[in-house]
Amino acid sequence: MNNAKLLDRARELKPILHHEVVEPVGGFQLKERYSPEKEEIVLHKLHHLAMGRGQNLCLDFGSHHVGYITLDLSYTGSHPDAPAFLKLKFAETMKELSENSDNYDGWISRSWIQEEYVHVDVLPSHVTLPRRYAFRYLKITMMDTSPKYKLVIRSAECMTETSADRGRAEPFPTGDALLDRIDEVSLRTLANCMQDVFEDGPKRDQRLWMGDLRLQALTNYVSFKNNNLVKRCLYLFAGSRFPDGKISACLFTRPTVQADDTFLLDYALFFAVALEEYLQETGDEEALNDLYDIAMQQIEIALRMCRDHVVTEDAVKDLFVDWCDELDKTACAQAIIIYALRYARRLARRKNDWSQATWLLEQSEGMKKAAREHFWDEEKQCFVSNGQISIASQVWMVLSDTLSPDEAAELMGRSEEFMDRCPMATPYMYHYYVMALLRSGLFDKAMEVIRWYWGSMLKTGTDTFWEAWNPDQPDASPYGNGGSVINSYCHAWSCTPAFFLRRYRLHEKTAS
Amino acid sequence: MNNAKLLDRARELKPILHHEVVEPVGGFQLKERYSPEKEEIVLHKLHHLAMGRGQNLCLDFGSHHVGYITLDLSYTGSHPDAPAFLKLKFAETMKELSENSDNYDGWISRSWIQEEYVHVDVLPSHVTLPRRYAFRYLKITMMDTSPKYKLVIRSAECMTETSADRGRAEPFPTGDALLDRIDEVSLRTLANCMQDVFEDGPKRDQRLWMGDLRLQALTNYVSFKNNNLVKRCLYLFAGSRFPDGKISACLFTRPTVQADDTFLLDYALFFAVALEEYLQETGDEEALNDLYDIAMQQIEIALRMCRDHVVTEDAVKDLFVDWCDELDKTACAQAIIIYALRYARRLARRKNDWSQATWLLEQSEGMKKAAREHFWDEEKQCFVSNGQISIASQVWMVLSDTLSPDEAAELMGRSEEFMDRCPMATPYMYHYYVMALLRSGLFDKAMEVIRWYWGSMLKTGTDTFWEAWNPDQPDASPYGNGGSVINSYCHAWSCTPAFFLRRYRLHEKTAS
Repeated sequence: MNNAKLLDRARELKPILHHEVVEPVGGFQLKERYSPEKEEIVLHKLHHLAMGRGQNLCLDFGSHHVGYITLDLSYTGSHPDAPAFLKLKFAETMKELSENSDNYDGWISRSWIQEEYVHVDVLPSHVTLPRRYAFRYLKITMMDTSPKYKLVIRSAECMTETSADRGRAEPFPTGDALLDRIDEVSLRTLANCMQDVFEDGPKRDQRLWMGDLRLQALTNYVSFKNNNLVKRCLYLFAGSRFPDGKISACLFTRPTVQADDTFLLDYALFFAVALEEYLQETGDEEALNDLYDIAMQQIEIALRMCRDHVVTEDAVKDLFVDWCDELDKTACAQAIIIYALRYARRLARRKNDWSQATWLLEQSEGMKKAAREHFWDEEKQCFVSNGQISIASQVWMVLSDTLSPDEAAELMGRSEEFMDRCPMATPYMYHYYVMALLRSGLFDKAMEVIRWYWGSMLKTGTDTFWEAWNPDQPDASPYGNGGSVINSYCHAWSCTPAFFLRRYRLHEKTAS
Repeated sequence: MNNAKLLDRARELKPILHHEVVEPVGGFQLKERYSPEKEEIVLHKLHHLAMGRGQNLCLDFGSHHVGYITLDLSYTGSHPDAPAFLKLKFAETMKELSENSDNYDGWISRSWIQEEYVHVDVLPSHVTLPRRYAFRYLKITMMDTSPKYKLVIRSAECMTETSADRGRAEPFPTGDALLDRIDEVSLRTLANCMQDVFEDGPKRDQRLWMGDLRLQALTNYVSFKNNNLVKRCLYLFAGSRFPDGKISACLFTRPTVQADDTFLLDYALFFAVALEEYLQETGDEEALNDLYDIAMQQIEIALRMCRDHVVTEDAVKDLFVDWCDELDKTACAQAIIIYALRYARRLARRKNDWSQATWLLEQSEGMKKAAREHFWDEEKQCFVSNGQISIASQVWMVLSDTLSPDEAAELMGRSEEFMDRCPMATPYMYHYYVMALLRSGLFDKAMEVIRWYWGSMLKTGTDTFWEAWNPDQPDASPYGNGGSVINSYCHAWSCTPAFFLRRYRLHEKTAS
């Protein structure tokens, strides 16, 4: 049920896209078609290579980019008497590049695999592919030429695209090489996801998700400061709610704005959270006036899913939290509602809506009390959700301020104890884990997690942070067999280390 | 060595392209991905079919077309959350449609196979493919959608393209259904090959070949009468000769005009033949003045390849005649030079170049005399080329007028005797066979060949005549294993039955 006024405002806030031309910094040939073994090619020889049937050439664009590719193609030998038939594979990582994507048999569409077959009828010619790709490597395989000629790739360039103005992010030297690199990779991840909206990942989905938006916005405030892009995204969500007023978990902008039919209660609540954080940053009265009621509506929808201040099955069934099928999300649901109530109260105070603020406080206090009664296990000294002890439950309860600061510090101080069942699967969950550590004053521990978790990702040689990461299983994919070709290796929800470092100046507060 | 003046003139003669929008007249699904078994779909249901992963839909556009395809794509289910990934296969024949082109392992480039993989990022949308295709059938296979939606092909249309003005071809009812159909299919074949130049075949090569041009021009004179297109092609050949003055066998027009590096003596000689026929048709003084010297140059180049009025190895080594590796082409070379000399003499007379005409006559007489001495076998009463008796040698010797009319009629009357060694492989060679029968006054026999040879092609259900046809081996391909997917099923050099029927009014002269 689109709201034309809100969507018109979102349209007015369409960002300017910034472009840059980048060229390969190196190249190599894979010795076999699907093998990581490679033979380096000296840069100045790259554009003189004559390619016949079956040969490949891999171009390394030096870092992860999002943009449009143009190839300047020519030939050696006789005038081409048949089209050049090429396969192009764009890959964010070396592993993806050398894998045979025919082996992918996962549960999301293989249409996201960045491979194209292209016939070039006229040579020499410039070929610009119409689609946008997210990649560092481009593998060009000659499917066929003809016996009379070979193909030469005279040059290749990528016209990058982002709505992040990289010049606005201030340098942030910490004096620590690993932290500097983590900050740099975080910002590249964010910038490459900042397009017409905040995308979750530029290779796949390319969609605006509420949960990702909230984290991107936080990191954006300490870097590129494209606050109008945050505002635009909030208006898009507000302008395309479901008929019952709920905010969708994600939305499409092409061909027209349309909410996806996925509802996630935590994501809907984050609308209020993200709005409040946006107002902290900007004090934007227009946004407060236009979006306040809609934010409150999400809170009220959540509260209607509770009975006697305890969440019902309704609140639990559509909840993301993390990628873990076994996770019992009841305690998380309770905690996330309490967490959102804190932001909602701030919104009400901004709006001078004092009766609402009072009512929200009552709800919050009631839910905290109920949370203690229903989920806190005195004996085990932790939160238990339907018999299950998980790190997610502890993290969200800490973030909800249900415990006293001392209790929270004590609980998070032994957080490793809760990692066995449903270990955290994503940088998204790790973000809230670090937040819970920070909220408990455990700065050293927070820094340790950042160094260990995001730092270990860097060891893969990546230039951007990933959608899913388990340091013990670097090749794992949430998408099933052969899924590593479909993983998103530049994923917005993993960009927040820059937020932690810059907002909390962690390097100054910690011992390391 | 391009001649700017001639190529400028050719550019001025660029044809107007005519367009027409055609839609499918029916559709079906192949029961298995590569199988001729099909399930018909009622026309009104065609555009409501919801296509999921692995499903196919074949559209039948009613007849053979050359043009650009636009698909109007939509979906059922949720808003597409992943691109639609389609494979499109354009096929001139049903056999081509149902074959797995991965099995093609022939000697010309697989890049000619009309298959594309397409990712559609936005739905609903109109997708217009940038390349031109030659096809009757379009098979659309869903490589993948996502579990949340299915693809619907709301409509499909082909914007045809041809430089033939179909309205200019007069109706030619013969009162004989088979002949009427042969005439119709001939003209469709020609029209679909008439583009920016006379192409040899619109699916493959798409190039201007001199041997094809001569036959296309003849059929064009009795039908679409786009004489400027003939003139343009003659200027293109004249304007892009080799440094030694030779005319190339074929040429490219994109990105700029460039002769292919293939020389065929018979094709070079046909430049003079085609020019003379063009002048017969038009009396175009400009063309005579611009192209006369170049035509004579080809004749002189051929004569320099003779010694004592007999062809040397030089004349034989670059000769097409027909697709038959075993064919001894020596007699053919001798005969084709004599044949071209007849047209050259006519050109000289048109130009009032009497000394040249006299010289050409002397050459012709000398070569005829030598042909008798070297190739005529008194005992066997036929031409023998280095010990080999072939139909091609007899045909070209008859066309050269080396025999008296009575002798020619006698020889061609028993032409079946010579079919064993090097049987004719192409409609191109059959054209000259029919011409030889007509030149010998054997109208009934000529008509019989047309009915049998081109008529048998119609039994495949084709709408256009083919590049290669052997009634005993309908699936044969000159291109090796699995080559039937790469055969050209609309090929210019097979369009001449309309010329025979219309120019000679054969149906009035024959007994049938």
